[in-house]
Amino acid sequence: MGLQYKRYEVDNISMDNNDLMINETVFHNANGYIGIRSNYEEDYPTVYDTIRGSYINGFYDIADMKQAEKLYGLVEDKQAMLNVVDTQTIHLTVEGEPFSLFEGKVLESKRWLDMEAGVTGRTIRWCSPSGKQVEIVIKRMTSFVQLPLFTIEYSVKALNFNGVVKFRSYHLGEVTNYSNANDPRVAQDSRKYLLPVQAEIVNGDSYLTSRTSMSELRVCTGVTHTLSKEGNLHTAGLEHSAICKAEVKIAEQETVTLTKYTVFCDSIRSRDCIAAAKLELEKARSITLEEHYLAQRKYLKEFWDNCFLEIKGDDALTEAVNYNMYQLVQSVGKDEYCNIAAKGLSGEGYEGHYFWDTEMYIQPFFNLTEPSITKNLIGFRYSTLEKARENARILGHKRGVLYPWRTIMGVECSGYFPSGTAAYHINGDIAYSVIAYYLATKDLDFIAREGAEIVFETARLWLDVGNYYQGSFRINEVTGPDEYTCMVNNNYFTNAAAQYNLLWAVKFYELLKTAGKLAVLENKIGLSFEETREFRQAAEQMYLPYDEELGINPQDDSFLAKKVWDIKNTPEEEFPLLLHYHPLHLYRHQVCKQADTVFAHFIFEDAQSLETIRNSFDYYEKVTTHDSSLSTCIFSIVASKLDQVEKAYDYFGDSAKLDLFNTHKNTKDGIHTANMGGNFMAIVYGFGGLRIKESGIYFAPVIPHSWEEYSFRINYEDSQIRVEVKHSESSFTLLKGTAKVIHVGNQAYELSDKVVIHK
Amino acid sequence: MGLQYKRYEVDNISMDNNDLMINETVFHNANGYIGIRSNYEEDYPTVYDTIRGSYINGFYDIADMKQAEKLYGLVEDKQAMLNVVDTQTIHLTVEGEPFSLFEGKVLESKRWLDMEAGVTGRTIRWCSPSGKQVEIVIKRMTSFVQLPLFTIEYSVKALNFNGVVKFRSYHLGEVTNYSNANDPRVAQDSRKYLLPVQAEIVNGDSYLTSRTSMSELRVCTGVTHTLSKEGNLHTAGLEHSAICKAEVKIAEQETVTLTKYTVFCDSIRSRDCIAAAKLELEKARSITLEEHYLAQRKYLKEFWDNCFLEIKGDDALTEAVNYNMYQLVQSVGKDEYCNIAAKGLSGEGYEGHYFWDTEMYIQPFFNLTEPSITKNLIGFRYSTLEKARENARILGHKRGVLYPWRTIMGVECSGYFPSGTAAYHINGDIAYSVIAYYLATKDLDFIAREGAEIVFETARLWLDVGNYYQGSFRINEVTGPDEYTCMVNNNYFTNAAAQYNLLWAVKFYELLKTAGKLAVLENKIGLSFEETREFRQAAEQMYLPYDEELGINPQDDSFLAKKVWDIKNTPEEEFPLLLHYHPLHLYRHQVCKQADTVFAHFIFEDAQSLETIRNSFDYYEKVTTHDSSLSTCIFSIVASKLDQVEKAYDYFGDSAKLDLFNTHKNTKDGIHTANMGGNFMAIVYGFGGLRIKESGIYFAPVIPHSWEEYSFRINYEDSQIRVEVKHSESSFTLLKGTAKVIHVGNQAYELSDKVVIHK
Repeated sequence: MGLQYKRYEVDNISMDNNDLMINETVFHNANGYIGIRSNYEEDYPTVYDTIRGSYINGFYDIADMKQAEKLYGLVEDKQAMLNVVDTQTIHLTVEGEPFSLFEGKVLESKRWLDMEAGVTGRTIRWCSPSGKQVEIVIKRMTSFVQLPLFTIEYSVKALNFNGVVKFRSYHLGEVTNYSNANDPRVAQDSRKYLLPVQAEIVNGDSYLTSRTSMSELRVCTGVTHTLSKEGNLHTAGLEHSAICKAEVKIAEQETVTLTKYTVFCDSIRSRDCIAAAKLELEKARSITLEEHYLAQRKYLKEFWDNCFLEIKGDDALTEAVNYNMYQLVQSVGKDEYCNIAAKGLSGEGYEGHYFWDTEMYIQPFFNLTEPSITKNLIGFRYSTLEKARENARILGHKRGVLYPWRTIMGVECSGYFPSGTAAYHINGDIAYSVIAYYLATKDLDFIAREGAEIVFETARLWLDVGNYYQGSFRINEVTGPDEYTCMVNNNYFTNAAAQYNLLWAVKFYELLKTAGKLAVLENKIGLSFEETREFRQAAEQMYLPYDEELGINPQDDSFLAKKVWDIKNTPEEEFPLLLHYHPLHLYRHQVCKQADTVFAHFIFEDAQSLETIRNSFDYYEKVTTHDSSLSTCIFSIVASKLDQVEKAYDYFGDSAKLDLFNTHKNTKDGIHTANMGGNFMAIVYGFGGLRIKESGIYFAPVIPHSWEEYSFRINYEDSQIRVEVKHSESSFTLLKGTAKVIHVGNQAYELSDKVVIHK
Repeated sequence: MGLQYKRYEVDNISMDNNDLMINETVFHNANGYIGIRSNYEEDYPTVYDTIRGSYINGFYDIADMKQAEKLYGLVEDKQAMLNVVDTQTIHLTVEGEPFSLFEGKVLESKRWLDMEAGVTGRTIRWCSPSGKQVEIVIKRMTSFVQLPLFTIEYSVKALNFNGVVKFRSYHLGEVTNYSNANDPRVAQDSRKYLLPVQAEIVNGDSYLTSRTSMSELRVCTGVTHTLSKEGNLHTAGLEHSAICKAEVKIAEQETVTLTKYTVFCDSIRSRDCIAAAKLELEKARSITLEEHYLAQRKYLKEFWDNCFLEIKGDDALTEAVNYNMYQLVQSVGKDEYCNIAAKGLSGEGYEGHYFWDTEMYIQPFFNLTEPSITKNLIGFRYSTLEKARENARILGHKRGVLYPWRTIMGVECSGYFPSGTAAYHINGDIAYSVIAYYLATKDLDFIAREGAEIVFETARLWLDVGNYYQGSFRINEVTGPDEYTCMVNNNYFTNAAAQYNLLWAVKFYELLKTAGKLAVLENKIGLSFEETREFRQAAEQMYLPYDEELGINPQDDSFLAKKVWDIKNTPEEEFPLLLHYHPLHLYRHQVCKQADTVFAHFIFEDAQSLETIRNSFDYYEKVTTHDSSLSTCIFSIVASKLDQVEKAYDYFGDSAKLDLFNTHKNTKDGIHTANMGGNFMAIVYGFGGLRIKESGIYFAPVIPHSWEEYSFRINYEDSQIRVEVKHSESSFTLLKGTAKVIHVGNQAYELSDKVVIHK
């Protein structure tokens, strides 16, 4: 097993059930629109557990989520991402003997992911029970260029015989989401969300159309096959499924290839998804598979060029970070109808929901490498403003919008509101991401068109949530990022985020007014100068808890009065604590699941003195378990800021390999996209010390002892900058665009070509 | 409609569906063991909704209660009181015409409850479609003397014809709990909790035995009939049911009576519930119905003697309070296997669960009128100590017990823990009730046997829940009585209750040690002097929030920092707020569902100055909606204490008629037992100013302007005292027992016969 540069390969693949499930995730193919888990084409033995899924981003049905006790406004159903079809199943028989890694003799078996080609593959040399040897190479691709397209190229080479190989390639419409009667964390029994609508075979192509049981959506999948040589190829329809049978003669040392194209079309994107599927299948066929592969490479070349990142002296880390960035581009939605799910399109964990992960962990990556994707992500929040308004009303707020904590199409899907809906910081996070986009791009037109409305409406909510008390503006009964402390008063992170949101609402008002770009929006949402004065007042009087004695910002009003959890003496098997302790018990202690105040110190670093940040960091370090995958990257960033470089490195190293090493034991349910974005952030914001502020762009590079050098690239306004950091010097190169002033340490530099700073 | 003294009667009974359902509750028969809703024997038209139920106190099955999101320790199923059988159905035909109030002509129809006889009844004069007139009188009784026994005496008098009347009397084992697909507050579809085991007919008596689906309990009901004159009486078995057909000739002006005896026996109380049912049926038959009626009267005579209460100048109130006291004795469990449910045995609201209502609203009534029942109620808590210990462990506590917020047999059944399990004051309430029993009776033997263990184990929990901070002992993340403010720090009520619990743990330790009654318990639970020092220290350093500026005890640490809810400008239709606002919105405001700190000021009045109590009362009055039926009685008591007698009267008047006037709009689901106890408290503790403390017994009588006089009786230690209060004087008479020192106002008096105090 091992990573090469942009290639991840596992030899002598384990046939342990759990390992197989992890690999279904790790090697999944996705392009932001569709995602296919990497199940074996030939299936596993029936006793094996498997999550055999193909997903469409933003395509959902509604699932019951009854509350144990009914209370006004509690969510009673949720949107859930669906497994829409199975087109990965292909059974092979070699001279009548069915191919299976569980039969005969496996001479070689490896799996790989080529991140420059955008292709996953299996390479197998297999000897059948009767002694026939074949080499099988199976390549899979979800196209970044033609988003609905998924291809399987299945090649068989006869090594020691002449004979016949047969393929049975399936197109199965009657699929369900994953369930496991023995695992209380996933669905116990599998409800049928998709109902058959129509199945047809047209010139040997099969089309299956299904509709959702509740959400009134449709999906059509089209499948076609080609054989590399003359043979018998025939597709027949069954009950809402189709089977393509191919039979072909093969000579010793000859290779025969079956190519299977699947297209996915849904009624969210196409009024007539059947017609769309037919067009997409035509389009897929209009060029060769090789041409598809080339287009994929081209797309990825540009991607890798934009997000180039290298760590000399730590190949494993470079490669893990490459893997992570690749998963981000695989996962992120490419249109306004979707976003990026907590597990991307790699599995059913968190049911395909979008969280604050998008804005606070993933958007920074796209902001700096491909801002047009950030625009899509903000566009999704913009298009769901009305749902956020409805949500705010359910929560009793007379003005403003409240974004849902977890959602697919904008409706709140949190079952347990104390660590769901109560996390009002989601509003501040989304506003923050709009501001971050603006600061990185200065794209005021987009702000005028979409961004400002989000910032104004979220700002309005704070005025309705909070109240003045003893001369300051307070925000009560909310949950901050740390889910081990819920429904508190004056969560520092939330208040700081609200302050930033309110201040920028005023700034955008002024910027747009000055630019003459405010009129439409002003009229649409009835914004007035008087209201911005309310924003400003609340921001200026925002209460940010501070403890004089400890010199830190307490996480909330009562955090410091609680018992300190004895993390050191808690047995290892009791982590994560949430699986072993009642929420009330957790809430009653000083114990954090993840970065909370420390996160605020990263993104709002100018709100506090360095001394306070240092004290806070030291304090929270002792009471944080990092039971969340969103935590150590943030601690790494702040450690870098505080010049604790080796500590920053330790935090970073723990975090970067989460999915490749299944360190959280749940990679089978999908990748951890926020963690992946966080790794990028830990390098660029952490070691690189990047900050983009109103006053300009800042770097403060540090480098861990064990690294020789690291470099990365970022977009800033119209320019692209390469940053190279060594122990002896840092250099900044303008790769594209106009000259910029950059700040490194306390010094400003004009960057027109290259700036080298010796230490 | 109207109440006479201990008789409640409704003439020209309404046939409106909702009124019928309310009357099913209001006229139900119960004796603390069984409860039968007052459904019409002849049924309603099928389009009518009805809750046709017969219940056994403490008899339950387990119902699913899935959480919307799974979290460690959250309750996923609950115990639910079952409808066990239908034996109230009797169809009558008069010369072939079926009797129904929805057919023919109703000449008279009234219902009544005789609270001295312990019998409910219907009197109907009816003219059939063809003109036959009958007078029907139906009396029902659940015997206080033979608890398993329920009787129906069904008499028909022919007014203008000679002919034949036929009865079809049913014994139906295939019953379900109430469900209504259109009402989200009750079960949507009716699960079958009871499964048939055995049905037999023995000498014309029918016995049906069923078992619960999950809890492994059995119930057997036996039914027998007699006819007042020779006739054809035959019982036949059907599928898990039986039908008794009676046919008898009737002459004009003759009366024919069918008497139906039902006995209920369950496997909680009897190892062989079928054998038990047979014995009980024999026992029922061994005396005449008239003798049963006499025994019932005798039981109630003693009851009314003990709790005699009269208000001259306000008959309606006297009668409402009598009704309420009668419901309490109907509802309260008479053995150690059960308690008193929030709705008694009158309906399925709150699923037959027991709450803090028992200790804080109902036990005071029995403490002062029939302390042996208090002993039973405490005995129930004692017998469920082990379940409370398990509950504490689930909540993360290493020592002590935590009683469930709602339960049938000791297991927590709260679905929504923030206003359920988090209400840790339940521990303090139970300890308080043990102490109250001791103060009223000085029964140290019972304390040694059962009470002290409860007080010690609940005290231990506080040590585990709380922590010292800045020199005082704090209790974080609990919910006080007010359910509009959840999971707060240092709820005043809770901290005061914990302090009292801890202090009395020390006192009981000392009392029992001195009396030489501690050894067994000391050994059993490993209590030591050192531990009592911990108790004492925590009690002495207990943090009781106090606001200097307002001179009040804030409800909790953050209560005063929240927005004040604008109750005055909230439209009337938005009450109760919990049906119109999301919990987060409620929690974020200063708004109380019910008495909380004000409650603490009543039961722990010596903890604060009168001035503070007055300030608190004024403050909380403005922010309390009284959306709970447990609230106004407490405000009434404290208003009395503060000499705001007319205000006390207003609060009291609102509260006392809740069920008779259906003021909370949910009487159909059952009576409000805690409210009923609260009415008694409002008179005795409120107007009468009764307090029983370590230092003795106190009165501070006041009398509302509109009353001429009121009087009540209480038990105190070995004595019974009658209290009579007029505007001009108060008098205290020793009815039984030894002389006592009583305190009235600031004066102590020796009460050996009668003390009269002129104003």
